[in-house]
Amino acid sequence: MNTSEATAIANEGSDASRKAPLAAPARFPFFLRNTGADGGWQRGVALFEFILRLCGIAATLVAAITMGTTNETLPFFTEFFQFHANFADLPALTFFVVANAIAAGYLVLSLPFSLAIMVRPRAIGPRLLLFICDTVMLALTTAAASAAAAIVYLAHNGDAKANWIAICLRFDGFCQRISGAVVASFIAVVFFFVLVVMSALVMRKH
Amino acid sequence: MNTSEATAIANEGSDASRKAPLAAPARFPFFLRNTGADGGWQRGVALFEFILRLCGIAATLVAAITMGTTNETLPFFTEFFQFHANFADLPALTFFVVANAIAAGYLVLSLPFSLAIMVRPRAIGPRLLLFICDTVMLALTTAAASAAAAIVYLAHNGDAKANWIAICLRFDGFCQRISGAVVASFIAVVFFFVLVVMSALVMRKH
Repeated sequence: MNTSEATAIANEGSDASRKAPLAAPARFPFFLRNTGADGGWQRGVALFEFILRLCGIAATLVAAITMGTTNETLPFFTEFFQFHANFADLPALTFFVVANAIAAGYLVLSLPFSLAIMVRPRAIGPRLLLFICDTVMLALTTAAASAAAAIVYLAHNGDAKANWIAICLRFDGFCQRISGAVVASFIAVVFFFVLVVMSALVMRKH
Repeated sequence: MNTSEATAIANEGSDASRKAPLAAPARFPFFLRNTGADGGWQRGVALFEFILRLCGIAATLVAAITMGTTNETLPFFTEFFQFHANFADLPALTFFVVANAIAAGYLVLSLPFSLAIMVRPRAIGPRLLLFICDTVMLALTTAAASAAAAIVYLAHNGDAKANWIAICLRFDGFCQRISGAVVASFIAVVFFFVLVVMSALVMRKH
């Protein structure tokens, strides 16, 4: 072995060690290429994320459907009270149904991307896309759940100073259903929060 | 130059190139150590983050103080209407004041950490801490702003079906102030959103 051979071999080793983190199979498009070594633990995290998304779909769908199908007609009416309660009567509850439906739709659409992350745990394109969308959805579901919670609180307790009466005294079934929907939505908020923080931590570890 | 010398030099080069991303000055505690090469552009991002935090302090303080000091007493009273309007009359508005005050306090406390990131742009400890707290605060301010917005909408428009009257017809100044506070809080939400996404992108680039 002469000097030039030794240098060549050493250089080869050096090149390999430097290029290893960038090695990517050329048959995948750039955004699905591995950007690091073997990502076994990331696959586990991706599976957990996928399950979280499925739970999120359940929570947002339950919230939207429970609120959207609430419709209580009382068997009596008086001069002062309406005898029909519907979510569409209150804009905050309409927003709640729309926002939760959007979140559920987004989560369904995000499943293929989540699968892509599971197949290629170190692909950065889908992860960044999901991270930003998850953050938007975290804000959206929080806004919907809070606005509805403010109205549900008012429906339960009323407000003496503003002369707003507690309509739950009349519409008991209506109030129980919308309270349940708000709880389901807050559970979805927790799922989104975990998704956002987990995504950021996994991106950090790349 | 003989074979062993050449190999040694080549190996040294190889080692240096492999270890470079892990090099850290030992005088800093682990969470302030550099985890990469020179982070010039990160310093610029950190400065932008610092300015965003200052703007966030302004927005949340304006929101909390505007809402907290709103107090309208009408020069007349009737049998049916109260003649005094205060944020403490409505729990959603009390939550709004508390949440925005918490967000403002957090932002003030986060400034030293933000400075630490500016001094050591690649320090991961403060960045992770700020990222998680920013995400919590994003959710908190969104919840506060949305709940207050639902109530403010109700105060402006009332709700005929629920027999809730529009109190803004009487309390005009009160309603203008609380509307302004809600807008300020939503601006703070935008600041938090940018902080969260930016932190995640910077962590990604480490």
